Amino acid sequence: MSAPVHHIPQAELELLLQRIFVRHGTSETVACTLAANCASAQRDGAHSHGVFRMPAYVSTLASGWVDGKAVPQVQDIASGYVSVDANGGFAQPALAAARALLVEKARSAGVAVLAIHNSHHFAALWPDVEPFAEEGLVALSVVNSMTCVVPHGARKPLFGTNPIAFAAPCAGHAPIVFDMATSAIAHGDVQIAAGKGEQLPEGMGVDREGQPTCDPQAILEGGALLPFGGHKGSALSMMVELLAAALTGGNFSFEFDWSQHPGAKTPWTGQLIILIDPSKAQGNRFAERSRELVEQMQAVGLNRMPGERRYREREASARDGVSVTVDEFERLQALAGD
Amino acid sequence: MSAPVHHIPQAELELLLQRIFVRHGTSETVACTLAANCASAQRDGAHSHGVFRMPAYVSTLASGWVDGKAVPQVQDIASGYVSVDANGGFAQPALAAARALLVEKARSAGVAVLAIHNSHHFAALWPDVEPFAEEGLVALSVVNSMTCVVPHGARKPLFGTNPIAFAAPCAGHAPIVFDMATSAIAHGDVQIAAGKGEQLPEGMGVDREGQPTCDPQAILEGGALLPFGGHKGSALSMMVELLAAALTGGNFSFEFDWSQHPGAKTPWTGQLIILIDPSKAQGNRFAERSRELVEQMQAVGLNRMPGERRYREREASARDGVSVTVDEFERLQALAGD
Repeated sequence: MSAPVHHIPQAELELLLQRIFVRHGTSETVACTLAANCASAQRDGAHSHGVFRMPAYVSTLASGWVDGKAVPQVQDIASGYVSVDANGGFAQPALAAARALLVEKARSAGVAVLAIHNSHHFAALWPDVEPFAEEGLVALSVVNSMTCVVPHGARKPLFGTNPIAFAAPCAGHAPIVFDMATSAIAHGDVQIAAGKGEQLPEGMGVDREGQPTCDPQAILEGGALLPFGGHKGSALSMMVELLAAALTGGNFSFEFDWSQHPGAKTPWTGQLIILIDPSKAQGNRFAERSRELVEQMQAVGLNRMPGERRYREREASARDGVSVTVDEFERLQALAGD
Repeated sequence: MSAPVHHIPQAELELLLQRIFVRHGTSETVACTLAANCASAQRDGAHSHGVFRMPAYVSTLASGWVDGKAVPQVQDIASGYVSVDANGGFAQPALAAARALLVEKARSAGVAVLAIHNSHHFAALWPDVEPFAEEGLVALSVVNSMTCVVPHGARKPLFGTNPIAFAAPCAGHAPIVFDMATSAIAHGDVQIAAGKGEQLPEGMGVDREGQPTCDPQAILEGGALLPFGGHKGSALSMMVELLAAALTGGNFSFEFDWSQHPGAKTPWTGQLIILIDPSKAQGNRFAERSRELVEQMQAVGLNRMPGERRYREREASARDGVSVTVDEFERLQALAGD
């Protein structure tokens, strides 16, 4: 039996989330950015990054671990390089502050990098890249998180779930977008399985003794995740640490210490975004070529493209409103002080 | 019982390979570049991309499929973007022709892209990125190849083995380098297993009916490979098609038709290289930070870093000479007309 569900217009959900953020200590600007991000995830059925995250945002703000009013400082470093010090605030407002300059540089230089450090990223990564593809750019982003993944061949966790997101325009289609944790499973999905009392498939994680387990609770209580795809996923996770932390000036996933901030949940690390302008490409036919690839993928029997589930959920949400369970909705109202 | 082995100084092996390339129709310049590349792979114990490949290079040149004398045309597109038309020749001479301009742009813009199209890449990918890291740059490269991988969830092969290579400087260490096929196994390793009559582990490929098989011969004769790591590796392989082909103006792995060129073995596609200058990073401490990450990886029990096996083999080769089996050596001498 599924839980009873409310269907809320997205704009209304966003306003509710904004009120929650402001009430718990963010600026109006930060509230708008984070509420839009979180409501989009909920709208697209990406529930592990939707309203499910709100209590953790609130407890983090209450703990003093993140500065909800931080004003990011954008630095124009070179013709293809922008750096942002998020000043201990969230990564999304830092991206928003640098966005126009970054796009201008990518269109002029053909490629541009945005290096964000001193930032907290607690959301899905695809909302950061998808809008660039809607403007005709190819975008790649990586963000490191917090120690919970055992490198392949090691005994103890070190890496974060370290996702990689990619977005590319596609003629006559929504952009091709993927967002994948380099762990075998996203941390949010382990929490959701634990909440529902469900077991995980094999190969996702280990318990506190380092032994393989399918019990999400055992992973959360002193255990750890495994990388996806063995040594290859592990190498990609290492690359994410290097690009998102070493290259930006941010913390590695294992470096920050939030023990003095009970309730803190957001990783204090860095994020890298690379934009490429495909109008510079030979023949300037990127979006059409991208469409040809999609058609061939369908021709060999692929019936769901990366990102397609989100687009379907998005359509349903536009039609019927965004689904939020009655329990979740009541929790949101309580957080908003209604 | 292992095969009897010759130990040859690397310079001597390179000269032998150069003679083979020139004898079979390449220019001196192309011969030097390809011989250095192939000898390096052999030196580093990367045997699937070492002298094992020489007969296929030769049969490809004989088939007229690739132009061994092609002169690449470099175009300066934007402050961070270089494009090269390899003119139907190999990718490595195209990279060599654009290299100085690319590095200059990366150092000036902070990031630069090299887009190679109309090119044949038949070698390992790490030799393309490692030298950039030796100069203090971070390098990422992707190349698509030829249809032999079934996208996750599809029925028929479409993607190539589509490797991703990454290199980053590391203070007081050789660069951190990885080079991974996005297929569960590299095509060369399937050929080597077939040659030795060995079975493969599970999950590597399917036979001509699309059924899982551990028989390398069944994969080579009408079967196909699987991506590594399920839908995630498959999404990365799709990204490689988009970046290496759609973005460069090169062919997708499924587009070229070599049926009129019996003996042709080299994929006619494209390659993308992204360079980032970490001296632009906050604090300019990339190589030291990279070293800190490596030390932490060792501290959690990782006893082999990505790329480390190659460095060990390289040391042994510098000391003892490059290992080539007596059979291989005789075959090389025959190809050289000795």
